[in-house]
Amino acid sequence: MRENAVQKIWQEGGAVVNGWLAIPNSFAAEVMGGCGWDSVTIDLQHGLSDFSDTVQMLQALSTTPVTPLTRVPTLEPGIIGRLLDAGSYGIICPMVNTPEQCAQLVSYCKYAPEGVRSFGPIRAAIYGGPDYLDKANETILAIAMVETAEAVANVDAIVATPGLDGIYVGPSDLALSLGERPQMDTDNPVVTEAMATILAAAKRAGVPAGLHCLSPEYSLQKIREGFQFVSIANDTRILTAAAQEQIATVRQGLAD
Amino acid sequence: MRENAVQKIWQEGGAVVNGWLAIPNSFAAEVMGGCGWDSVTIDLQHGLSDFSDTVQMLQALSTTPVTPLTRVPTLEPGIIGRLLDAGSYGIICPMVNTPEQCAQLVSYCKYAPEGVRSFGPIRAAIYGGPDYLDKANETILAIAMVETAEAVANVDAIVATPGLDGIYVGPSDLALSLGERPQMDTDNPVVTEAMATILAAAKRAGVPAGLHCLSPEYSLQKIREGFQFVSIANDTRILTAAAQEQIATVRQGLAD
Amino acid sequence: MRENAVQKIWQEGGAVVNGWLAIPNSFAAEVMGGCGWDSVTIDLQHGLSDFSDTVQMLQALSTTPVTPLTRVPTLEPGIIGRLLDAGSYGIICPMVNTPEQCAQLVSYCKYAPEGVRSFGPIRAAIYGGPDYLDKANETILAIAMVETAEAVANVDAIVATPGLDGIYVGPSDLALSLGERPQMDTDNPVVTEAMATILAAAKRAGVPAGLHCLSPEYSLQKIREGFQFVSIANDTRILTAAAQEQIATVRQGLAD
Amino acid sequence: MRENAVQKIWQEGGAVVNGWLAIPNSFAAEVMGGCGWDSVTIDLQHGLSDFSDTVQMLQALSTTPVTPLTRVPTLEPGIIGRLLDAGSYGIICPMVNTPEQCAQLVSYCKYAPEGVRSFGPIRAAIYGGPDYLDKANETILAIAMVETAEAVANVDAIVATPGLDGIYVGPSDLALSLGERPQMDTDNPVVTEAMATILAAAKRAGVPAGLHCLSPEYSLQKIREGFQFVSIANDTRILTAAAQEQIATVRQGLAD
Amino acid sequence: MRENAVQKIWQEGGAVVNGWLAIPNSFAAEVMGGCGWDSVTIDLQHGLSDFSDTVQMLQALSTTPVTPLTRVPTLEPGIIGRLLDAGSYGIICPMVNTPEQCAQLVSYCKYAPEGVRSFGPIRAAIYGGPDYLDKANETILAIAMVETAEAVANVDAIVATPGLDGIYVGPSDLALSLGERPQMDTDNPVVTEAMATILAAAKRAGVPAGLHCLSPEYSLQKIREGFQFVSIANDTRILTAAAQEQIATVRQGLAD
Amino acid sequence: MRENAVQKIWQEGGAVVNGWLAIPNSFAAEVMGGCGWDSVTIDLQHGLSDFSDTVQMLQALSTTPVTPLTRVPTLEPGIIGRLLDAGSYGIICPMVNTPEQCAQLVSYCKYAPEGVRSFGPIRAAIYGGPDYLDKANETILAIAMVETAEAVANVDAIVATPGLDGIYVGPSDLALSLGERPQMDTDNPVVTEAMATILAAAKRAGVPAGLHCLSPEYSLQKIREGFQFVSIANDTRILTAAAQEQIATVRQGLAD
Repeated sequence: MRENAVQKIWQEGGAVVNGWLAIPNSFAAEVMGGCGWDSVTIDLQHGLSDFSDTVQMLQALSTTPVTPLTRVPTLEPGIIGRLLDAGSYGIICPMVNTPEQCAQLVSYCKYAPEGVRSFGPIRAAIYGGPDYLDKANETILAIAMVETAEAVANVDAIVATPGLDGIYVGPSDLALSLGERPQMDTDNPVVTEAMATILAAAKRAGVPAGLHCLSPEYSLQKIREGFQFVSIANDTRILTAAAQEQIATVRQGLAD
Repeated sequence: MRENAVQKIWQEGGAVVNGWLAIPNSFAAEVMGGCGWDSVTIDLQHGLSDFSDTVQMLQALSTTPVTPLTRVPTLEPGIIGRLLDAGSYGIICPMVNTPEQCAQLVSYCKYAPEGVRSFGPIRAAIYGGPDYLDKANETILAIAMVETAEAVANVDAIVATPGLDGIYVGPSDLALSLGERPQMDTDNPVVTEAMATILAAAKRAGVPAGLHCLSPEYSLQKIREGFQFVSIANDTRILTAAAQEQIATVRQGLAD
Repeated sequence: MRENAVQKIWQEGGAVVNGWLAIPNSFAAEVMGGCGWDSVTIDLQHGLSDFSDTVQMLQALSTTPVTPLTRVPTLEPGIIGRLLDAGSYGIICPMVNTPEQCAQLVSYCKYAPEGVRSFGPIRAAIYGGPDYLDKANETILAIAMVETAEAVANVDAIVATPGLDGIYVGPSDLALSLGERPQMDTDNPVVTEAMATILAAAKRAGVPAGLHCLSPEYSLQKIREGFQFVSIANDTRILTAAAQEQIATVRQGLAD
Repeated sequence: MRENAVQKIWQEGGAVVNGWLAIPNSFAAEVMGGCGWDSVTIDLQHGLSDFSDTVQMLQALSTTPVTPLTRVPTLEPGIIGRLLDAGSYGIICPMVNTPEQCAQLVSYCKYAPEGVRSFGPIRAAIYGGPDYLDKANETILAIAMVETAEAVANVDAIVATPGLDGIYVGPSDLALSLGERPQMDTDNPVVTEAMATILAAAKRAGVPAGLHCLSPEYSLQKIREGFQFVSIANDTRILTAAAQEQIATVRQGLAD
Repeated sequence: MRENAVQKIWQEGGAVVNGWLAIPNSFAAEVMGGCGWDSVTIDLQHGLSDFSDTVQMLQALSTTPVTPLTRVPTLEPGIIGRLLDAGSYGIICPMVNTPEQCAQLVSYCKYAPEGVRSFGPIRAAIYGGPDYLDKANETILAIAMVETAEAVANVDAIVATPGLDGIYVGPSDLALSLGERPQMDTDNPVVTEAMATILAAAKRAGVPAGLHCLSPEYSLQKIREGFQFVSIANDTRILTAAAQEQIATVRQGLAD
Repeated sequence: MRENAVQKIWQEGGAVVNGWLAIPNSFAAEVMGGCGWDSVTIDLQHGLSDFSDTVQMLQALSTTPVTPLTRVPTLEPGIIGRLLDAGSYGIICPMVNTPEQCAQLVSYCKYAPEGVRSFGPIRAAIYGGPDYLDKANETILAIAMVETAEAVANVDAIVATPGLDGIYVGPSDLALSLGERPQMDTDNPVVTEAMATILAAAKRAGVPAGLHCLSPEYSLQKIREGFQFVSIANDTRILTAAAQEQIATVRQGLAD
């Protein structure tokens, strides 16, 4: 089965640099897939891709070296199974607040006996290879988002879930849930303390933890603190910031 | 009729900062439309948008302040008419090498008696307004690409075409046609001399000239030399460069 | 944040005239958006739009003055969050039969502490404005459909739900649930009595009530009875009826 | 081969009532296809459908009794052949100004020896039937738009073109070309006189003539004058007018 | 209401030969629809079609004689209702493991009083006919997949569910659930014994049973054993096997 | 630059086994791309793919080992340039009847000085590699269809065109043009004699010749006669024939 780069980096103790796709288009995906990320996540929750776009984006990403991940809108087995069948190599699931929910997530991502995933890897076996059935359970990643006060309270039980491959922190929802204002790359002590709690629990359990970041600098800092998976903004934020800066350079030059 | 920002800037003697869209997607267009460009050009020649994508992108751009332009694949009246009917406020046409071709371009963009455009502004009148019929000929821009050795030889006759609103230089095709290697933001003297020849002819004729650039710095320099319309790279180049730089920042930080 | 016209009309005690979109196409949406409705609802339950169509339709509606609403297929947080992130200004949710379900609906539409909506308004902040986070909870509408016998029995508890912005009656499902035959613009006394019960409860609670109608005459009558939101048929019914009438005019004229 | 209703009505000396599709969507097409039109024309010139939309719309129309026609953007053999291969039962071609152009149109619509159409009726044979090769030339309609001053001057030669099945008048382009203001359902004497000239020439040649109309009343009048094919507005105009009228009914009622 | 061929064959005691669609495209659907199957199932679980594709595929299938069925990703009322409204004539639902789940499935497929399906058959009434409301409950099929050890244990209770129209066995998931290796056209005794148990229960209850097969030979054998609905592979498997065989014929011939 | 398998096989004197894509869908393309063909041709003439579909299909084919070719609707530079920019590795152009047309075809496929292709390989450089500019002219194939009586008369001049990479015979159009009935895998002596004339001219000029076939047996025979490129039917024909055979097996078995 084709290797999962995220898994390999984690096995070697390293940190994954992940791109984030909000634009629902296969060419934008192919372009991002060629930028040098270790993995790229197609976001079906807050991004604008729906399942059909995602199939085409997964095809486009298959022409590049990145490992394709997908974030689902909610903990629902239908969309998880369909994305895996389409060739996603990992599911990031929002709002996993209890160990029971985490166990459900794992079960939706794995074939029996580890889980209840239905068999029919129509495109996944094309992408993954002929031994997909034998290796899928160990290769496909189930990643739970720990991003609420309730989840923080349950974090030790969550990370102890058998079969869980990683956790991912959404700082905006975490802040909202803690009564704080959402802010990317936050230094709000209430939020950063919760992050530290989550990270410590993950470390104790030997489960890699990831974080959604905005800047490369903050990403770097968080890797140094122990996070092993960082996403830098997303395609539209990167594009917007760079375009605005270039326009400003011209306008400022003309004004001078 | 809704104002054409490109035309207004030109009437005031200013320079247009234009964005370039290669990604065939309406959300990417909406994002680019909000970045601060004066105009944005959907590219149906070397970009990946086809007509249906372009309709949706024009709708998305209509939610933003930018003036929407479109580049057609060739000098062909069908696609020109359809894009104008869909709400494009200007046509950039490649490979206009003779004054006869330039006259054709103008005729395809204007209603009788100035041209032969067929009447049926199905979305254009929604976007432009109820006086579209009366004001379209003076508001919609016909922009000829002068980008071959033959066109340079004919440039004075081309820019003298009645009804022509502007010209646009494609440096890569110009270089190829002159036997030079295509290079964005070129300082190849053969190419830059041809550009200067084109610009001088345009200035003599009172026709604004534009240039496809890569960097904001080169764009600024060319505006100072007299170009009144610059495109900075395109959406995928801006995205790629920015993403690569951010990834490099993280990887370099980790390596240190 | 951009104003919600539905909310404003309700605050002024008026009645909203709402268009209904079943055709999954952005141009049809743009055309309907320009007809003069106060709001337009994209129907993902009985209409044929899916999420991707809806994103493009929301973009198209953003070029018009109407306030865009969406009806979801079921009470499910994933699609509610995604539609709000795409720029919908209100959720109409079918089959809200209990106060518990109504509280869930509200919670899916509001950020903490009022609800559990996940943060990431990717297009909504473009459409709504930079103060989206601060104003979304008070601007975005949660509208529960009261359309079953069970819901009628629970109507006082349903309309008492904190954060509920309005209710909407689907007369066909209401009739079916009451053992009557579905009929638009019905005068079936069993159904109209249930409607009156619902309206009275809503009035007592100060919650605006809406109704799906077929004809403008019935819509007008129901507004006079106290409904503050009426939908007149939908795009395909209006188109079909008008086209059939025009064809009949020609055929009848030829037959005479 | 499946019958062409337009042809049959013409053979019986009758008049065709044709619907016009500007919305690029297969469900809108299916709805229009069920309204009672004899034929429906998908417009690829001033409508927003591109080839891919049209394929799906032709599939949708195949579920209804109407005969599907298509209007092409220009006299270009590629799009004509592709639409016929997709199952269109007739081509309406704009701006046929000379008998030479008319002969080209016919040749693009017919297999050798009558024309040069390339063989490969991939969906057309599914729709038309197994004898498509034998009967296509006699069943598929080539309809030339006579809509310019030049075409009026050439009208006798145009209608004499062997293999031509019908002509169609676009009143807006005709008016523009004659130096008059485009107006649907016009009574401008310059334009109506030109229409009469065209109709008379067609009658002499035994070629049915059609006209693009707005109202059923005007359509009826023109059939009485001898036109044998009328299009009533289009889907978006019919929808817009009907929706506006219904909204006005409610608002006027509320104002009273 | 248009007849349901599956139902009719079952009423006559016959067996349905069903095609299976994994390619999300309306032309592929139209081609498959013309091959001679009794019914064709669009697969939204392991196939790649999403709702929008399915609408277009259902339109395409409506041009052919086959009865269109759909398989949903999970037991969820939203997608079931939408597919029925789009014109599906039967729902195949995976992982129905308990009689309670089976009753839910039936209720999502039927209008009150038999179920809770919401009324709005926007395309279904076009396809089915004007008496859709009266005949839908008896014409639309609810088919439960019995494909886990738990379901086998509950099979008598499942098949006793009032309103259930048929059951369908997925041999891969059944094998996985029984601790065996998934294999199409299996002769694994553990799996075939479970199949026999299911079939016997269905026979006792008078509920037709179906099976997903790979080869026509195995399909034939299973019909002879009593199954009354067989699916032969799917579009991509049939295409792949046939293409590979043809390529091999050429390559082998060249090698000889 | 990524190797062109067709070119390599030709350089080694071998014959290419080519698949043909009529279904406009990226998953069908990916499936066909994995079947073992040397190359696959997306057909924009008689197939149903338009440009946008083709971009996604080219992405899908890039995940497989096949070399992607495209057939254009007509000899038109716009679509040729766009397909090459999207990553097509060769253009098959219908109805090349004269050496002048053949020279145009070559010029549209090559950069100056060999041709007039415009520079902007937006996806082609991603697929082909960073040396695309230097190697495209020698790697991308220009293939002319010789398929009319006129072309047969001109065949020696056509195959002598500098830069021409191959020719391709469409037997149906050839038959029609010769006054014969189109028939795949024909043994009509008029048509086979014309094929032999074409093949002989190609051999003399050292230009590989291809043929559109139906069966593998006929393909093999034609390779033995000297053709170096055969297409076996297309995706829909292969699928249809195989599905019909499997259905017949079951129905025949049941009838026995």
